[in-house]
Amino acid sequence: MLEDVTLTVGQYELVLNLFSMTIAAFLGGFIYLLGMRSQVARRFQPALLVSAVVLAIAGYHYWRIYGSFQGAFAVSGDVAEPTGDSFNNAYRYVDWFLTVPLLVIETIAVLALAKAEKRSLLIKLVPAAALMIALGYPGEIAETTGPRLVWGTLSTIPFLYMLYVLWTEMGSALSRQSDAVRVKFRNLRLLLLGTWGVYPIAYLLPVFASEASASLLVGREVGYALADILAKALFGVLIAQIALVKTAELIEAGEVDLTDGESVRVTAP
Amino acid sequence: MLEDVTLTVGQYELVLNLFSMTIAAFLGGFIYLLGMRSQVARRFQPALLVSAVVLAIAGYHYWRIYGSFQGAFAVSGDVAEPTGDSFNNAYRYVDWFLTVPLLVIETIAVLALAKAEKRSLLIKLVPAAALMIALGYPGEIAETTGPRLVWGTLSTIPFLYMLYVLWTEMGSALSRQSDAVRVKFRNLRLLLLGTWGVYPIAYLLPVFASEASASLLVGREVGYALADILAKALFGVLIAQIALVKTAELIEAGEVDLTDGESVRVTAP
Repeated sequence: MLEDVTLTVGQYELVLNLFSMTIAAFLGGFIYLLGMRSQVARRFQPALLVSAVVLAIAGYHYWRIYGSFQGAFAVSGDVAEPTGDSFNNAYRYVDWFLTVPLLVIETIAVLALAKAEKRSLLIKLVPAAALMIALGYPGEIAETTGPRLVWGTLSTIPFLYMLYVLWTEMGSALSRQSDAVRVKFRNLRLLLLGTWGVYPIAYLLPVFASEASASLLVGREVGYALADILAKALFGVLIAQIALVKTAELIEAGEVDLTDGESVRVTAP
Repeated sequence: MLEDVTLTVGQYELVLNLFSMTIAAFLGGFIYLLGMRSQVARRFQPALLVSAVVLAIAGYHYWRIYGSFQGAFAVSGDVAEPTGDSFNNAYRYVDWFLTVPLLVIETIAVLALAKAEKRSLLIKLVPAAALMIALGYPGEIAETTGPRLVWGTLSTIPFLYMLYVLWTEMGSALSRQSDAVRVKFRNLRLLLLGTWGVYPIAYLLPVFASEASASLLVGREVGYALADILAKALFGVLIAQIALVKTAELIEAGEVDLTDGESVRVTAP
């Protein structure tokens, strides 16, 4: 098991502190997204709401992950040794199983597409997202390289399919958006590609190493946590920015009146 | 007692992880339903609110159930052995005693019926729901098959009465709804029938087995937890969808103005 290693106190504290930072980032993002709903046109509010739901679910899981990591190691002197209580990786996968489909939903929701177009994207992307996570878990808990590679490869198939749909079908939906929205959406997709690329690297770390080691465990946990912060909290902030830009465009076009009795500029802090 | 069995670590972790997933699903659903109230006409908002209340109560109880299960077993090596602290099934029944009548209330509330019609349904369905749960509990904690079957049968009487009312009296209330709402409501009732059918099966598992076993306990807990996720969280999402469809119809008919100053499309993510 990757977790049956002795950490230095520095490594142990690095991981715990990073988990705590993740909880704090999700808490802050959660409140921001809930509150920013009143700054955007009603049609974009569900996107911000779903984004807040993602951060609440993920924050709950990092709370559990923090506790599980704390229970799995006991500090004695300069080292943190395994207690025998296993570090529960399932929290991550349950989290991703719930939140990755929701991240897809918020991405589609912020476009406020026509019903048929929205439905077509949801039907393709949401099951693919759930399948990607479900196929990854057996590989994550595998003790040997063989099954880890097999399940990892199977999980990659829905991932590639999602990228294909995001860059083709969603691309054509994007072509009807304004330049400003298209630029923001390009950044959003690049963030998605960049952060989602970290997960397979963290997942494959054990394959590249000849044996379990402390730095391997720390590398995996740091990789997953940083990727989660970017892919959920920063992603949510970008979703809010897109909603703000689109709201400003609707106000400009006279389609939406979002005022306190007077004309108002909608701005992101 | 069904709980006096030794589990494998895998079985123990499966149950705990599923309980944790249930908490996360209820947390997410709770936030979603509270937030979506601003997307529906005011007359449907209480239905979403009651649905959020259900998820809050159920999430609290799963937090207790998680802790009770964790305290009832101690991992040692490859197995999880009973500690002597009993796993508290009463949390489930208290939860159902409070939430099943509320689920009935939210189902009636989302129809926004005339007062007399609403009252007639509530008077029949709410006491029947409470009675169904109250009669089930003595059977659940019974040590032998006899009382389990007797109480189970008594509990089935209000259950069948509820199905009768849902399919006859509510059926006639539904006949005045639009096609789109009727289809959604058909799905809602089928979900109710399908998930509520899981509870008696999980309840009767001990009757079919000659003795207590780990797989029996795991089967019962997995069955109850999955049924709860579907019957409460997914049920709540369907309630929100019905409210959104009915709101869109009211906007279409010019009866409701739910705008940011001007015409607005209400969309569900």
